[in-house]
Amino acid sequence: MKRVSFQGEHGAYSEAAAISFFGKDIEAIPLATFSDVLESTVSGKTQYSVLPIENSIEGSVGESYDLLYTTTLRAVGEIYQKIEHCLIGTGTLDKVDTVYSHPQALGQCRKFLQEHAIKTVPAYDTSGSVKIIKELGKDNIACIASRVASEIYQIPIIKEGIADVSYNYTRFLVLTDGASNKTGKDKTSIIFSIKHEPGALFRIIEQFHKYGINLTKIESRPKKSTPWEYNFYVDFEGHQDENLIQDMLSQIKKDSTFLKILGSYPAAKIV
Amino acid sequence: MKRVSFQGEHGAYSEAAAISFFGKDIEAIPLATFSDVLESTVSGKTQYSVLPIENSIEGSVGESYDLLYTTTLRAVGEIYQKIEHCLIGTGTLDKVDTVYSHPQALGQCRKFLQEHAIKTVPAYDTSGSVKIIKELGKDNIACIASRVASEIYQIPIIKEGIADVSYNYTRFLVLTDGASNKTGKDKTSIIFSIKHEPGALFRIIEQFHKYGINLTKIESRPKKSTPWEYNFYVDFEGHQDENLIQDMLSQIKKDSTFLKILGSYPAAKIV
Repeated sequence: MKRVSFQGEHGAYSEAAAISFFGKDIEAIPLATFSDVLESTVSGKTQYSVLPIENSIEGSVGESYDLLYTTTLRAVGEIYQKIEHCLIGTGTLDKVDTVYSHPQALGQCRKFLQEHAIKTVPAYDTSGSVKIIKELGKDNIACIASRVASEIYQIPIIKEGIADVSYNYTRFLVLTDGASNKTGKDKTSIIFSIKHEPGALFRIIEQFHKYGINLTKIESRPKKSTPWEYNFYVDFEGHQDENLIQDMLSQIKKDSTFLKILGSYPAAKIV
Repeated sequence: MKRVSFQGEHGAYSEAAAISFFGKDIEAIPLATFSDVLESTVSGKTQYSVLPIENSIEGSVGESYDLLYTTTLRAVGEIYQKIEHCLIGTGTLDKVDTVYSHPQALGQCRKFLQEHAIKTVPAYDTSGSVKIIKELGKDNIACIASRVASEIYQIPIIKEGIADVSYNYTRFLVLTDGASNKTGKDKTSIIFSIKHEPGALFRIIEQFHKYGINLTKIESRPKKSTPWEYNFYVDFEGHQDENLIQDMLSQIKKDSTFLKILGSYPAAKIV
């Protein structure tokens, strides 16, 4: 049975993403931090890590991007996981005056919480907040988490679909110590840094254009070593085993001060 | 006397940034959210807003970027503010087992907290966490905030300089209902979105290259209206009143589906 590590408690959206990718027949290992998740795969305790990369509303997960820079693991899959926030608690909606959840989940349900004049308390993660309110055992205290988390901790759902925007997906990467074969519909993720001179970024973006390769995402993160300089994270269509991609990457290598190929993986369907 | 709004409680790093930009002779108005900060300037209750944009370690502040997209205010200044985290409390270091602070400050002092096996509790902001621990009044509970916050709430500093990385600056924008004059050493911030087709981003970056204009920052944020499409936030050298910049912007306008000029402002010196 595949062992897959994820951040959070059982019932987390990351666990749901792991199950949607690998199927139910896995051993999903909950860990406290993103760093622990990757470390468990590096050390061989798990075979795969599932890491949230970006959310359709909140944008990129900075901590995950920083870990991709240092990890020895490679990206071999991507997942789009629907996020469906539920208000979970033992009371009724009119009784609830305090809600626990991850700050991102609280932010995504801001309108609902304001309408009902509910106080918020940030918690470590969504499914962990169900654990907290179960221990507190008060009818005025609820939390925001997934339907699965409600089932696991056996605390009822007070209201479903409380997010401000109904289209809410998180994109995850699947990482392992290995590579993924070409499927004909792949994406590749790379990280590069550029010379600190005018036109440096242009010369790299130009290569994608010259080779006719479609860039699907570009993200910048601060370099930890040099303040106010950036590493660029780019996703594009194609597999690193294709000749065209290899040619382009060798051109990019010339124009960059650092280049890391995170991996190629079958492109997941955007729902 | 200038009225300047900032997010947080008195003693926040944002207030320090406001003072370093305008001098001590201002009325600094603390407000609960970034959105409240901008709203107070839009409605005329304050003349200026000071908004954190990016941190040298943690990267961009997503919520601020999203507000820049919608605001009618314009950027007229930038500030680099040094962040110096202190452990603040009534106890001694060996007594402290719990620390309150903003999640970003907790993250920036991770090594120190782990070395001393200290539990963390996320709080709304750094200076607010001094208020919390003052109310709790326990020797085992401390917080992480600035020297100024320690002075304001009269809670002693247990240890200074507890951040993992000593170079820690946050960049702020100053926003108002008006524009800034050319100084000869300016920066301009714009937001644009591109056609959903290959090469669209390239054609815009190419304009900067053609006109010889130095791009200092590029950032992408999800479009709220269309999932998995992005708005791009670009800072570059030059003032929007210069002919060269105006020519380039009119070219960019042709290639983009949306273009907003956030403003031009004197470039602050990077320390």
